[in-house]
Amino acid sequence: MYRINANFLKYPGAYLFLQVAKKREAFAAAHPDRRIISLGVGDVTLPLAPAVVSAMEAAVREMGRRETFRGYPPTPGYPFLKEKILAGDFAPYGVHLEPEEIFINDGAKGDLGNLGDILSGDDVIAVCNPTYPAYVDSNVVYGRCGEYDAGKGQWSRVIYLPCVKENGFVPELPAERPDVLYLCFPNNPTGAAITRAQLQRFVDYALENGCLIVYDAAYEGFIESPDVPHTVYECAGAKRCAIEVRSFSKTAGFTGCRLGYMAIPMELEADGVKLNALWRQRLAVKSNGVPYVIQRGGEAVYSPEGRAQTRAQIAYYKKNAAAIRDGLRQAGYEAFGGTDSPYVWLRTPGGRSAWEFFDLLLERANVVGTPGSGFGPSGEGYFRLTGFGTWEDTAEALDRIRSL
Amino acid sequence: MYRINANFLKYPGAYLFLQVAKKREAFAAAHPDRRIISLGVGDVTLPLAPAVVSAMEAAVREMGRRETFRGYPPTPGYPFLKEKILAGDFAPYGVHLEPEEIFINDGAKGDLGNLGDILSGDDVIAVCNPTYPAYVDSNVVYGRCGEYDAGKGQWSRVIYLPCVKENGFVPELPAERPDVLYLCFPNNPTGAAITRAQLQRFVDYALENGCLIVYDAAYEGFIESPDVPHTVYECAGAKRCAIEVRSFSKTAGFTGCRLGYMAIPMELEADGVKLNALWRQRLAVKSNGVPYVIQRGGEAVYSPEGRAQTRAQIAYYKKNAAAIRDGLRQAGYEAFGGTDSPYVWLRTPGGRSAWEFFDLLLERANVVGTPGSGFGPSGEGYFRLTGFGTWEDTAEALDRIRSL
Repeated sequence: MYRINANFLKYPGAYLFLQVAKKREAFAAAHPDRRIISLGVGDVTLPLAPAVVSAMEAAVREMGRRETFRGYPPTPGYPFLKEKILAGDFAPYGVHLEPEEIFINDGAKGDLGNLGDILSGDDVIAVCNPTYPAYVDSNVVYGRCGEYDAGKGQWSRVIYLPCVKENGFVPELPAERPDVLYLCFPNNPTGAAITRAQLQRFVDYALENGCLIVYDAAYEGFIESPDVPHTVYECAGAKRCAIEVRSFSKTAGFTGCRLGYMAIPMELEADGVKLNALWRQRLAVKSNGVPYVIQRGGEAVYSPEGRAQTRAQIAYYKKNAAAIRDGLRQAGYEAFGGTDSPYVWLRTPGGRSAWEFFDLLLERANVVGTPGSGFGPSGEGYFRLTGFGTWEDTAEALDRIRSL
Repeated sequence: MYRINANFLKYPGAYLFLQVAKKREAFAAAHPDRRIISLGVGDVTLPLAPAVVSAMEAAVREMGRRETFRGYPPTPGYPFLKEKILAGDFAPYGVHLEPEEIFINDGAKGDLGNLGDILSGDDVIAVCNPTYPAYVDSNVVYGRCGEYDAGKGQWSRVIYLPCVKENGFVPELPAERPDVLYLCFPNNPTGAAITRAQLQRFVDYALENGCLIVYDAAYEGFIESPDVPHTVYECAGAKRCAIEVRSFSKTAGFTGCRLGYMAIPMELEADGVKLNALWRQRLAVKSNGVPYVIQRGGEAVYSPEGRAQTRAQIAYYKKNAAAIRDGLRQAGYEAFGGTDSPYVWLRTPGGRSAWEFFDLLLERANVVGTPGSGFGPSGEGYFRLTGFGTWEDTAEALDRIRSL
C-alpha cells in the first residue's frame, strides 16, 4: 500500500487565513444584516492599472492570431520582462544582475515554498517571530521543522527570532546558527522596515556563518524612507548569500493575476553546486512557465504610464494605512508600521489575546483583522490591519473601532 | 553551511527537450540558410479559439474596473470553471464528481511533479517505458528513484513497464508491485490508446495491490475510438485508486496560457488520511491559485462556440498526424499512433539508434523530431513526430523525409 508524506500529519490545524475566513463566514451567516469590513487578508482592492489592462488586452489579441500566437513560454520567463525588471527594480539602486539570474514565477508564495525542493531536508531554518506563515508551513512538508509544540506554538527545529516593540520589530542576529534565514522587509505582518545598515549586519552574519538568506521583498513598492534598502543586493556581499523573492501582487495589484520572480545570483553555491543551476533543473522537471498574457501585463508595470498608475495605487493604500495608524493612536492604541508598508500592527487593548480581540472586533465592530498570534507566538497581544481596503471602508472601520 | 538536496546531483544530464533544442540551435547557427521544420516538442501552433479570446478580453476588462476586479483567486480554482469541467468532461461519460474533488492548476506538468510532495519518499513508482520524462524526473527530487544507471538508462528503484509493438504499446500488469503507477493514455510518446477493458485491468490491479494510479489524460480531446475511455473514472472502482490529471494545453491550445486540473476523489485514502485533504493543505501553504483571466478563458472552452472551435483545431492536428503516419507507411516505415492522438511513433529505419535518426533527419531533411530513447530505454529504435505543426509544414516535412 502506498504511503503519504507523514510530515503532513504534523500540521497543527488550519492555515491562518482559512481560520479567519471561517470565523468571518460563520458570523456573516448568523448576522446577514451586518456589513462586515475586511482589513484582514492582504488582498488589494483597486483594479488593474489602465496600462496593464491595455497590455494584457493586446497580448490576448496576439494569442488569437496565428502570426503572433505563442505556445509554451520559456520556463524561466520571457526576456522582455526580465529586461524591464533588471532596469526597473535593480539598476536604479546600483545593482547589476543578469537575465539568467531572474526566474519569473506565478507569485511569491509558490516559489517561496518550492525553494525547499532544492535544499537539504536537514537544513535548519530561522524565521522572524511573528512572520508570514508560509515560510514555516511550507518547510514542514520537507521535514525540516521537526515537531509542533502546541503549548509553545512553535516547531522544535525552527529558530525563531523575536520581533517586538523593544527591538523595533527588527530581530537580533540569531544566537544559534541557522542554515536558511527567512527575512521579509518591509515586514509582513508588523509593517516594520529595515535599514540598509541593519540588513548589512544580517548579510555579514550569513557570509560568516554559511547561511542562505531568503529575502522576501514583496512590499518593496511601499518603501519611502531613504535609509531603507529596495533590494538585499544593495548590501555588500549579498549575491554570495541571498536569494530575493519579489511579487507584483502588492506593488501592481496582481493578486488575481499571479506574477512574481526570484533572483538567484550565480555566485550562490553550496556543496560545490550553483543554486541557480539547481533551480533551473527543478523548473525543467516541474514547470512550464507563466502565461504570456500575464507576463505582458507585468512588463507594462515598468512603462512610464504603468509606473505612474501603480505608484498612485500604492499611495492610496499608504494613505489608508497611515490613517489607520494615526486614528488608532488618537484613540489611545499603540500602533506601528504604515510608513514603508501597507500594514499597521497594533497592541491589543486591555491585555486581550489576539484571538479575543479578533472576536471582539468582528462581533462589535463587524471589522475583520488578523490576530497577531497567527503569525507566531511573539505576535500574541498584537493585531494586524491593512491599508488595502477602500478609503471609505477604512474610514468607517476606524470610526467603528474608535467607538468600541 | 547550508546543504542542497543531494538528489539533484543524481540527474544524468539535460532534460530531453532541452537536449533537442540545443542540437537544433547548433544546427541552425551552422546553417542559417536552411528552413528547419519542427515536429518535435509537442507544442501547438494554432491560435487561441475566438471564443477563448473574447472571454479573456472580457476578463481583462473586468480586472480593470473597480466593481468587477478580483483579487486572490480561490486557491483550488473558481467554481464557475469547476462546474463546466464536471458537466463537460465527466458527466457525459456517466461520471459524477464533486467540485471539491477538482483542483484547477497552471498546467499538468507542475502538479504531476508537485504531487510527489504529499506522498512518502519511500513509495516506489512504476512508469511506462517509454514515457513522458517528467514523471520520473520529478520524483528524483524526492529520492524515490534511487540511483541512475547510465548503462541501462534506468533508475534503480523505478519499475519500468515496457510498451512495445508486441503489446500494442499498452503495458502488461507489473510483475513487481509498485506503490504509485503512472499511466498516460492516449499515450505520449507512442500515440497508443488504451481500451476501457484494458484500463479496468489496471484499476482492478491497483485496488487489489494498494497502488495509487496517477492517470494523465492530457490528450483526452484526441480520442475518437468508441472503446477508449475519456476518463479513468469510467472504470469501476477507479475513484478508490486513481488521481486524474488533465490539461487545456493540447485540447484547447493553452500551452502559452498554462491551465489544467487534477481530480482527487474523496474516496482516496492512505494511512487513514484523505489525499484530497493533503493536497488542499499543500495548496494552502504553497500556492495562491491560477489567474482569473486564464480561468475565464478555460470556461469559454466549454461554451458551444468554444467547443466547436477547439474541436476543429484538434481535427486539424489529427489530420496532420494521420498524414504523417500514412505517408510514412507508404514510404516503407513502420508507424503507429495518430488515431486517438496527435503523436506518431515510428521505427527508425536501418537499425539506426534514435539519436542517430534524429541527427540524420535534422541534417538531411532539416526536420526536428524527438528520439524515442529520450523517453526511456524501450523507446530506443523509435522516434516521435507530432501533428502540431501547420498542414503546410507537415506536408513539406513528409516530402523531405520521403526523399531521404
